Amino acid sequence: MIIVMQKGAGEREINLVIEKIKTAGLDVHLSRGEERTIIGVIGDKTRVDADEIRAVAGVEKIMHVTAAYKRASRDFHPDNTVINIGPLSLGGNKVSVIAGPCAVESRDQLLDAARNVKRLGAVALRGGAFKPRTNPYSFQGLAEKGLELLAEAREATGLPVVTELMSEKDIEMVAKYADVLQIGARNMQNFILLKDAGQTGKPILLKRGMSSTLEEFLLAAEYILAQGNSQIILCERGIRTFEDYARNTLALSVVPVIKKVSHLPIIADPSHGTGRSDLVIPMSRAAIAVGADGLIVEVHPNPEKALVDGPQSLNFEQFGELMKEIKPIAKVIGREV
Amino acid sequence: MIIVMQKGAGEREINLVIEKIKTAGLDVHLSRGEERTIIGVIGDKTRVDADEIRAVAGVEKIMHVTAAYKRASRDFHPDNTVINIGPLSLGGNKVSVIAGPCAVESRDQLLDAARNVKRLGAVALRGGAFKPRTNPYSFQGLAEKGLELLAEAREATGLPVVTELMSEKDIEMVAKYADVLQIGARNMQNFILLKDAGQTGKPILLKRGMSSTLEEFLLAAEYILAQGNSQIILCERGIRTFEDYARNTLALSVVPVIKKVSHLPIIADPSHGTGRSDLVIPMSRAAIAVGADGLIVEVHPNPEKALVDGPQSLNFEQFGELMKEIKPIAKVIGREV
Amino acid sequence: MIIVMQKGAGEREINLVIEKIKTAGLDVHLSRGEERTIIGVIGDKTRVDADEIRAVAGVEKIMHVTAAYKRASRDFHPDNTVINIGPLSLGGNKVSVIAGPCAVESRDQLLDAARNVKRLGAVALRGGAFKPRTNPYSFQGLAEKGLELLAEAREATGLPVVTELMSEKDIEMVAKYADVLQIGARNMQNFILLKDAGQTGKPILLKRGMSSTLEEFLLAAEYILAQGNSQIILCERGIRTFEDYARNTLALSVVPVIKKVSHLPIIADPSHGTGRSDLVIPMSRAAIAVGADGLIVEVHPNPEKALVDGPQSLNFEQFGELMKEIKPIAKVIGREV
Amino acid sequence: MIIVMQKGAGEREINLVIEKIKTAGLDVHLSRGEERTIIGVIGDKTRVDADEIRAVAGVEKIMHVTAAYKRASRDFHPDNTVINIGPLSLGGNKVSVIAGPCAVESRDQLLDAARNVKRLGAVALRGGAFKPRTNPYSFQGLAEKGLELLAEAREATGLPVVTELMSEKDIEMVAKYADVLQIGARNMQNFILLKDAGQTGKPILLKRGMSSTLEEFLLAAEYILAQGNSQIILCERGIRTFEDYARNTLALSVVPVIKKVSHLPIIADPSHGTGRSDLVIPMSRAAIAVGADGLIVEVHPNPEKALVDGPQSLNFEQFGELMKEIKPIAKVIGREV
Repeated sequence: MIIVMQKGAGEREINLVIEKIKTAGLDVHLSRGEERTIIGVIGDKTRVDADEIRAVAGVEKIMHVTAAYKRASRDFHPDNTVINIGPLSLGGNKVSVIAGPCAVESRDQLLDAARNVKRLGAVALRGGAFKPRTNPYSFQGLAEKGLELLAEAREATGLPVVTELMSEKDIEMVAKYADVLQIGARNMQNFILLKDAGQTGKPILLKRGMSSTLEEFLLAAEYILAQGNSQIILCERGIRTFEDYARNTLALSVVPVIKKVSHLPIIADPSHGTGRSDLVIPMSRAAIAVGADGLIVEVHPNPEKALVDGPQSLNFEQFGELMKEIKPIAKVIGREV
Repeated sequence: MIIVMQKGAGEREINLVIEKIKTAGLDVHLSRGEERTIIGVIGDKTRVDADEIRAVAGVEKIMHVTAAYKRASRDFHPDNTVINIGPLSLGGNKVSVIAGPCAVESRDQLLDAARNVKRLGAVALRGGAFKPRTNPYSFQGLAEKGLELLAEAREATGLPVVTELMSEKDIEMVAKYADVLQIGARNMQNFILLKDAGQTGKPILLKRGMSSTLEEFLLAAEYILAQGNSQIILCERGIRTFEDYARNTLALSVVPVIKKVSHLPIIADPSHGTGRSDLVIPMSRAAIAVGADGLIVEVHPNPEKALVDGPQSLNFEQFGELMKEIKPIAKVIGREV
Repeated sequence: MIIVMQKGAGEREINLVIEKIKTAGLDVHLSRGEERTIIGVIGDKTRVDADEIRAVAGVEKIMHVTAAYKRASRDFHPDNTVINIGPLSLGGNKVSVIAGPCAVESRDQLLDAARNVKRLGAVALRGGAFKPRTNPYSFQGLAEKGLELLAEAREATGLPVVTELMSEKDIEMVAKYADVLQIGARNMQNFILLKDAGQTGKPILLKRGMSSTLEEFLLAAEYILAQGNSQIILCERGIRTFEDYARNTLALSVVPVIKKVSHLPIIADPSHGTGRSDLVIPMSRAAIAVGADGLIVEVHPNPEKALVDGPQSLNFEQFGELMKEIKPIAKVIGREV
Repeated sequence: MIIVMQKGAGEREINLVIEKIKTAGLDVHLSRGEERTIIGVIGDKTRVDADEIRAVAGVEKIMHVTAAYKRASRDFHPDNTVINIGPLSLGGNKVSVIAGPCAVESRDQLLDAARNVKRLGAVALRGGAFKPRTNPYSFQGLAEKGLELLAEAREATGLPVVTELMSEKDIEMVAKYADVLQIGARNMQNFILLKDAGQTGKPILLKRGMSSTLEEFLLAAEYILAQGNSQIILCERGIRTFEDYARNTLALSVVPVIKKVSHLPIIADPSHGTGRSDLVIPMSRAAIAVGADGLIVEVHPNPEKALVDGPQSLNFEQFGELMKEIKPIAKVIGREV
């Protein structure tokens, strides 16, 4: 950390900053210029809280030299973290596709979806039993009944199950049925949920918050890693911008950046990332081309009758087309679906 | 709701839309133009889920005529909801200021802060016992010990206590000590927490999410209202934009809009809304001038030593100045601090 | 256009709206519901100005049924507009890459760049003689000297030249030397420049503004089209968001949307779209995979010595790698570089 | 400027950075840590171009110690710049209101508006003769005829005239009639227009671009200042965000920040900043309370009949109310309207 003091900063302020750093067990490197004093923190592995320093009168700017996240960084863990759950493999050479309906609606709907996405090449099943809905009067999911159906679909197809966890109270129940716990964009900074989910030891699919920076995203992962759980699948699912032709702006450049600074696998969600079924296939191609480790895609036997997110769901034929289109792209960048 | 079908939309699609609306118990008004068919929904008080309709092939656009929130709307409840908790009064003619440290750090710090903000005109005490921190290695709050200190400060000063609730598991504990449960920006769409907090019947201070639209904000309030709890204090605390000179962009125009469309009181948080103590006083003046029902302000006996959010905290002298400056502004718009 | 009146709107307001529409030579379809009156505009091909209607007291909402742009829409011109300039071909099956330095700096630099990008597969040369610089004290370009060098490089390589036009005063000069006039993101709504450039009849590369919506982008193109010039190459170059790991957020989903609603070709600029040379290759792959008609890429003989935009420029080796990587991706989606 | 090199950066890279700095005539301060080398630039008054440095392999981060703008900074010119044009005074103790129609539509409309805004307290007249319209088919202004009418209105009322300049070609013409040249948000980075307008020596009202940072805004002003013209009125007119209840998000916190870092006066435009006439009065109160030096407000004899921006225009009665409400607010913060 490098601290730039204001032009007129006095000895009191400079000493207060130095004292704070030394109290944290770190050393300083002082550089007094003609106009400004600059204070470098030596050995900031554990990082003093920048806000504590910034609060001192006379501090003008602070620059971080090392990232705030540690266990999530590639410096800490140079090799890719690879997550293998049955046929699902993320972080290695394989590109994996997770597919299924937005919400579990019925036994028929789910089994039909599971069998067909498997047939078409998906290696894991998604489906929500608890649905975070903006509107309290919308369908909120089948809860435990939905989880049971997911488990049944796993039995029937062999596909591991990815499903959203919305509440600490449900962790035990969801962990009993699910293979991967999903933490949604709206809960990315629900820190208690992150900690508690992390403690289950289960793999966690963590979606990026709608207005989350790269550092916030990796610090959310750090909450899970700090519990000793490194089975984390990051997921870019679109950010909120002024754009109005799609539900979100899928920020694909985050993928190669994450691959560079972190060892965790990252996938893309073109369904939520666009909100439009006609954009799911082209953005899936782009996500694979940019280097994503996989996709999570909404597929419904009959999107026109879906209770949730029909406008962004693919039918089986479209999903088959998606799989057909991404395979050669994966191949030309040296990967395999 | 008005549904515009695409140019080439056929009878199958039109009938599918009509069927969905009728299934929801509503009537349609069909208008077949030369190029497009337009379907109006009659009696959409309970509103069909727009996504269900949008998923039908051939639907081009949907326009909502009525808002998605109901109990939060002024149509539903024409008079202002007024919340009175001891000296704190929001939604009426009075402008109330809630003040205190970001985090409860110690008995001395809290009591000192409480006595001084009271002396200077605050009518409620804020202070976090559970702190949502971006970084898992930052100070996370004193937990129940912090709540006990808050209760002690209430005893000592008579100020009602506003404190953040981060987890469903803690509701009982927090509700035992607090007068107002705060739900932070990061949890604005933690729907389980909204429901559970709503059911306590306690007044709730609901902060707007960092990238939340007006409708999403009021639908979050609707989750609480749907539990039969209308003791809700809305709070604008800044949105995330590309701006880089302040931590957030305090969007004050939301205040008069909320006063127009909703009956709920709305206050502003100039501390989080700017992240800079030098902007807190001018933005407080602006918030009162625009018509906010109150403020929530971070005040610390010694911001330079604060464990959390020091850079945006005022000391007592600055808070006294703030109170002095907002009083005449409240007066000229016919209100009273 | 569909106009929804407020609940209490009276006859005066309704009649005023109807009068405005009829004055514009259009017909209305009136639908009086129990609570609200809804007015449909029939035959809105030329579209009344929505603002004129919105200004009437009692108007609550307006929904557009048809787009505001006409000549830019695929409805107006169902087939792709194909632009052919020597080896450069955009809008057909071919994927074309435009490459070269950000700014023309010297004869050696430019000729070296031109020869090498040609050798590696580029079909047009980019290079700025006039540079829009945020800082008035930064290098502003070589002006006419730069244009002369571009013409010389075209002579030497056969590559058509794309260069930025910043001022109406320079149109004649720039048009004399350039094959394609580029209008930069900062000038996307410099309407006079759009008109004047359009009148030259020269092909125009129009970059999307940093905070421009889809409709604003196509309406900017419409300014050019309205001059009788349909030789327009649209270019997505990144939008401004809260993201901080890259200079801009390259919004690739706009590509398939533009291909759907418009007949104009669209390319991507991964150099400005990310601002980081390490992201240019992966985002180029993604842009081709999503369906862009081409790329415009910054390539410099020695990026470390570039006067402008060095951090986002590729060297020849990297550009060769880019070309090598996008070819098979173009092929698998049925296109050819 | 402080440059942090990457962990593994070698001598070649470090020396290349040092060479670039020394070539620019500046000195370096080298600090070799265990892991990283940090290079400080001494005497960076004229600032090396950060991009040139960032392009060097091995550079990780750059932090600016001083701002990129100079003449616009308060360091350069500690006292407020005060602009006096007849009754209009900005930058001193007075709060000035500029008012008038969005566009000049006719002699009657303009004279009626001018006389009434004067009667109600405005000290300058606004009105567009050239209108930057998103849609090429919308009314584009009366051009020179409009300028003549503005001059006539000045004769009739004594109010100085503020009007928009859209093109370098029109500078002479506009400068002949106008007292203040307005450069609109869409042209904030039309650098040629900034330079040419600056050279007229006329006062310039510079609106902040829709997605412009503070530094970009002040660097745009710097383009004008670099021509020797310091008669600049900055104007916050709303930024583009995801918010959808208003046309823009009026970012009032920029006002106290500008007052701190710059000597130039800053006013607010609540009309464009909200796009809704019902928000103009409350946001005007807030703008004055936050410390703006003035307002620019759209007022039309009959907003329902306005050709441009009717929805955000006030009628005379509303404008009278606005003036009545801001006066006591100005007074309580020690200023005078």
